[in-house]
Amino acid sequence: MSATIPHIHWTDGALRLLDQRRLPHEVEFVDCHTAGEVAQAIRQMVVRGAPAIGITAAYAVALAADAAWRSHGAQWRTAIAEPLAVLAAARPTAVNLHWALARMQRCMAALGGAAPGPVLAREAAAIHAEDIAANRRIGEFGAALIAPGSAVITICNTGTLATGGYGTALGVIRAAHAAGTLTEVFACETRPWLQGARLTMWELQDAGIPATLIADGAAAALMQRRHIAWVIAGADRIAVNGDAANKIGTYGLAVLARAHGVRCMIAAPTSTIDPDTGDGSQIPVEERGADELVSFRGLPVAPPGSRVWNPVFDVTPAGLIDAIVTEHGVVEQPARHGVRGLLRGR
Amino acid sequence: MSATIPHIHWTDGALRLLDQRRLPHEVEFVDCHTAGEVAQAIRQMVVRGAPAIGITAAYAVALAADAAWRSHGAQWRTAIAEPLAVLAAARPTAVNLHWALARMQRCMAALGGAAPGPVLAREAAAIHAEDIAANRRIGEFGAALIAPGSAVITICNTGTLATGGYGTALGVIRAAHAAGTLTEVFACETRPWLQGARLTMWELQDAGIPATLIADGAAAALMQRRHIAWVIAGADRIAVNGDAANKIGTYGLAVLARAHGVRCMIAAPTSTIDPDTGDGSQIPVEERGADELVSFRGLPVAPPGSRVWNPVFDVTPAGLIDAIVTEHGVVEQPARHGVRGLLRGR
Repeated sequence: MSATIPHIHWTDGALRLLDQRRLPHEVEFVDCHTAGEVAQAIRQMVVRGAPAIGITAAYAVALAADAAWRSHGAQWRTAIAEPLAVLAAARPTAVNLHWALARMQRCMAALGGAAPGPVLAREAAAIHAEDIAANRRIGEFGAALIAPGSAVITICNTGTLATGGYGTALGVIRAAHAAGTLTEVFACETRPWLQGARLTMWELQDAGIPATLIADGAAAALMQRRHIAWVIAGADRIAVNGDAANKIGTYGLAVLARAHGVRCMIAAPTSTIDPDTGDGSQIPVEERGADELVSFRGLPVAPPGSRVWNPVFDVTPAGLIDAIVTEHGVVEQPARHGVRGLLRGR
Repeated sequence: MSATIPHIHWTDGALRLLDQRRLPHEVEFVDCHTAGEVAQAIRQMVVRGAPAIGITAAYAVALAADAAWRSHGAQWRTAIAEPLAVLAAARPTAVNLHWALARMQRCMAALGGAAPGPVLAREAAAIHAEDIAANRRIGEFGAALIAPGSAVITICNTGTLATGGYGTALGVIRAAHAAGTLTEVFACETRPWLQGARLTMWELQDAGIPATLIADGAAAALMQRRHIAWVIAGADRIAVNGDAANKIGTYGLAVLARAHGVRCMIAAPTSTIDPDTGDGSQIPVEERGADELVSFRGLPVAPPGSRVWNPVFDVTPAGLIDAIVTEHGVVEQPARHGVRGLLRGR
């Protein structure tokens, strides 16, 4: 199968999501008919990746509004508050979720007395399409920073599966590969969820980009032993001072990069920048359950009762980031001026 | 079951090894009747950990000599060269294997005309007992460096299962816990083989030491968010300049430790110091198969055909190490003078 199958697919009052928990070896879809089902799919990581979560939540608003219209008619707005709150609480770190909900609420506020579902579904589709277009621009801006003959390290999955399509960090990698400047991508397997092994390797293989899988702990030895030009990662929330939350392990890669003369790029749409978050200390970091570390597909890999600390994001200070790349342009050395300037075009 | 069951057990012409590939949830033993079977057990990681490999190989020499005596009588020495070579080649990085074989060869050279098996089995048992005693001393020396109220991070398994008993880095942790100075141990799960999750958590739990399991990629966030006093790791080979090879990920932890004001301790018996290795660049680093990253107990976790780089050790330069702790004492800041002085007592 191909990594290019649509993973967020809206069809007549239902949202079909590719179940990313089972990829790449099992291809199954989850059909969501209610906003509650979408929220559960986000919580359980059927769909993940900050931009993809935002797009999915936008479609869920259309589902919620349609259900509210059918049950409450012209009073549909009173019935939608609860499903919106459930969606907003599905996962705490990625701000794209809140950004998408806010945009959908602005669309709702402008609606007349007709059935809201179709208009909101079109708005969600617009968010979806704009994200793909933004990724293409991120790819171009990011690739322009990559010199010929570059090997790079990436973490987690920031490709089609994490976005509307194409990808953020993986979009930069795609564009650099297309430009002929990229020699090789090293993909950290990205424990505990193995997004790098399961999803990124799949997308890179599908795109014909030379890719090598490494254990997360091997990144330091890789930087020690051969020249790596960039660490390229996505983000789940960027504070206005340039601090960036991303998949657990990103901060460590950034520290290692600085110690080895490797540059660090964060690639994300401006929907990832939170104007209300001054710095990284204000970003809520989700901690998930012990099961992700003590078992693998139901097989135990640690003794029963093991205590676990499982934060699934960390925060990289702006001072360790060499470039933040968005669809509205690049901020190099974001620690100097922050990223508020990127929000003007948003 | 208890983590204190003997994992290397010699009984009348056979070596019984606890199969560490299946721990902690399946307790099985592998009986080795020939040196070839022992070499295979080492290669396949039925037994692992530098000191444990050395002890196991020593017992294998007794098996080989006994077989050679039975087949060749007084000419037994001519028949033992091949099994010794197979043992020496079982795994490349841990020098304790070569150290143990060299010691067994000195014992063989001193033998008279009687059957060699019993004497060599006693020599192997002496190596085994001396390793346990050395670990106790390592524990005392290391614990003396740990201030009250210390939280530490460790990697891989360096406990009873990696040694004759008690442990190296885990011996320091045991001794510090007994001394009341240790508040908590964070165990990196240690991909790809999960020695931290499967073996170290088991030993720590068994010893009643407060332990928390983390993904390898979470170590940086942990150092960023709370005070960690030490990274404490073992070693598979220490060069005379103080560079130390250990489980993949150790070098990264050492870089992160330095960046966060965390100190870095390497705990190992002097059998881990290789007088013939001047610096870390001369240490052969084993690369194992892709299967360790692309599948888990036969379940695929990456797309078929994924290219993998799977070095299972890395080399931490002496300059990042604050203390090397052996049974003959401690060298602080080994980059200043190297560790040759520790070999005098060996």
